[in-house]
Amino acid sequence: MQKLSVRTTAHSALVDITRDVQRVVAESGVREGVCHVFVPHTTAGVTINENADPDVARDIIQTLERMVPWEGPYAHDEGNSAAHVKASMMGFNQTVLIENDALALGTWQAIYFCEFDGPRNREVWVRILPVASRA
Amino acid sequence: MQKLSVRTTAHSALVDITRDVQRVVAESGVREGVCHVFVPHTTAGVTINENADPDVARDIIQTLERMVPWEGPYAHDEGNSAAHVKASMMGFNQTVLIENDALALGTWQAIYFCEFDGPRNREVWVRILPVASRA
Amino acid sequence: MQKLSVRTTAHSALVDITRDVQRVVAESGVREGVCHVFVPHTTAGVTINENADPDVARDIIQTLERMVPWEGPYAHDEGNSAAHVKASMMGFNQTVLIENDALALGTWQAIYFCEFDGPRNREVWVRILPVASRA
Repeated sequence: MQKLSVRTTAHSALVDITRDVQRVVAESGVREGVCHVFVPHTTAGVTINENADPDVARDIIQTLERMVPWEGPYAHDEGNSAAHVKASMMGFNQTVLIENDALALGTWQAIYFCEFDGPRNREVWVRILPVASRA
Repeated sequence: MQKLSVRTTAHSALVDITRDVQRVVAESGVREGVCHVFVPHTTAGVTINENADPDVARDIIQTLERMVPWEGPYAHDEGNSAAHVKASMMGFNQTVLIENDALALGTWQAIYFCEFDGPRNREVWVRILPVASRA
Repeated sequence: MQKLSVRTTAHSALVDITRDVQRVVAESGVREGVCHVFVPHTTAGVTINENADPDVARDIIQTLERMVPWEGPYAHDEGNSAAHVKASMMGFNQTVLIENDALALGTWQAIYFCEFDGPRNREVWVRILPVASRA
């Protein structure tokens, strides 16, 4: 698997990592297959959404904050339970298909690393499986 | 990969696509493997849930609407940020196991395309990987 | 695929199943690959999160309950629509990478079965795919 580094610069942020994942796909030489994107953290996740208008990412962050307020009440004494809940809501892995040596994403789709307790240095792990019949 | 068409007929709707995905599995000739179902949109997603009582799908739609109200406030000037958030909450891909030439789903499970900004013509992409040792 | 049994002992609970899934990985003999964890229910799901402090799991359960109250209002006359919504929010499958014969999880990550309408006897299905080029 390939490990990518992500440096987040805010407490909550959606960081477009599509280009980095695409580079891993290109270097793999896999023409048709599946790309698994995995986040090895518990206060950050990964999702897919629109990257044309940056207001979409902002709205996602703020809507999650309204649903899961930072202030709680929570039991976990580290004080970041909201980040744990938001990460589980977005999820820790995304599976994207590979066609013609590239990620097969919809027109408006991008892959977003979801930081909910930053800023921090984070990782994203990527594994690619070819369609077995071509292996 | 195989592309399925989904025509949604309401603004928000859960559309049971199990039969269509099952057909792709049957045509693939794969006896044991994994079926990846991917939605290439940003205001629609895919989930799994009960199809015995249609009220379950209705309750899911209405509960999501209470959590993420259409009226906002949101920054995105297209006015459909609620749909973007709901799609990320349900997710854009589901991975279902294949056993004995068929989707291995629980007794009450169905695969639902989740429309949050319809009605529209939509797509679902399906890729099947066999268990490699049988390839 | 391998079937695991999970006995839940409360109405809502996050049950750490990492060790059980890890055993399936070890027995598979797969050194590098992907592990798919699938929950065949509609009122229970699966997520990943921290297992160091049990308060994190408690906060996830209680925060979901505040977002999706058991009392509704809901149409589904079985009365457990909240469990259906929470299960779709957490998701029914997790994909974890396999490296060096083991699950590749982050330092604080555990795989949690998410019971939202227990106590019940539940199942978790696991399928492992090797990286095809090593098959």
